Amino acid sequence: MSDGTRRRIALILFPNVGELDAIGPWEVLSHWTSRYPEDGWDLHSVSRDGAPTPCAKGLTIVPQYARDAAPTADVILHPGGQGTRPLLADEDHLDWVRRLSKEATLTTSVCTGALVLAKAGLLRGRPVTTHRTSLDLLAELEPTARVDREARFIDDGDLVTSAGVSAGIDMALHLVAKLHTVERARQVRYGIQYDPEPPV
Amino acid sequence: MSDGTRRRIALILFPNVGELDAIGPWEVLSHWTSRYPEDGWDLHSVSRDGAPTPCAKGLTIVPQYARDAAPTADVILHPGGQGTRPLLADEDHLDWVRRLSKEATLTTSVCTGALVLAKAGLLRGRPVTTHRTSLDLLAELEPTARVDREARFIDDGDLVTSAGVSAGIDMALHLVAKLHTVERARQVRYGIQYDPEPPV
Repeated sequence: MSDGTRRRIALILFPNVGELDAIGPWEVLSHWTSRYPEDGWDLHSVSRDGAPTPCAKGLTIVPQYARDAAPTADVILHPGGQGTRPLLADEDHLDWVRRLSKEATLTTSVCTGALVLAKAGLLRGRPVTTHRTSLDLLAELEPTARVDREARFIDDGDLVTSAGVSAGIDMALHLVAKLHTVERARQVRYGIQYDPEPPV
Repeated sequence: MSDGTRRRIALILFPNVGELDAIGPWEVLSHWTSRYPEDGWDLHSVSRDGAPTPCAKGLTIVPQYARDAAPTADVILHPGGQGTRPLLADEDHLDWVRRLSKEATLTTSVCTGALVLAKAGLLRGRPVTTHRTSLDLLAELEPTARVDREARFIDDGDLVTSAGVSAGIDMALHLVAKLHTVERARQVRYGIQYDPEPPV
């Protein structure tokens, strides 16, 4: 950054978050921010209470910050997973996400994280996507959204939503290109050897 | 399992493990074992002391078991990451890995996890791979190994090694097919929406 200002990306954690929903983007973005600090971006993880967070399929992650102690973020990333369902009725969480999104210049989601953004009222009239099995629920939660059933991720300027689980890796590479350069995103892709060859 | 015996896969954790090296396979294998318990497989994470484990790029994971309390595993998975380098001179860790590998019917690695297997003497004369930037080091650590510089992963029967970081996802899908069926691996791939489209 020519003006010396550092910018921040926040990964939002919550109970029963999908493991790869969160860690796919984390790997991409932390590879970027840790190997290329001169680009001016930092990454942190945050949850409401900062306590060890049990994920959807048995892993436990320790967030770096509780929300009250976390730095302000320019970009927020809301992962999905089974834990999004109770959040749809959790006004405290929805208020927090609304506030984070308002403070940020870019709001992003992976998988069913989009359901939470929808319930928070952040997807009105927007082109969006989510996990393939939650497309109908997303349309139901936000009838004005234009739900894309094919895209790997949708960039709508200050909002980027991705399809299910592993799609967060593709979206995060796009974010590196969007926030910095395509060349840097290619370097990160090379570093994490992301030349996928699904064997089945 | 027709005889009712359950089998176990152990993910080995250690300080400065690569986040996606570990969690890519975790997502694939935990999706399998949690959604299809009737297949007879369980998955757990284990480290030497069971304490919260700081990963290579800032995340902290809490293992489910310390090694002395962990169940015996039929399959072991050793991830890579910067934390593998000190392990190459850590006789206690190398002894543990040798013992786990002897008890198991299948030993697997992601990324630079192969360096640790090499140093433990488990790759003699075997076809193997690792992260693209560690291929020469792997050949140096185990000159009798046949280091493949192109493969996404190498299945050599009771040993499967993968290329760097994200290659663990491909390898884990192969493991589901190998340990159960191709059809089940396809179901897991569908569930995690692993239809990669690298955008850069």
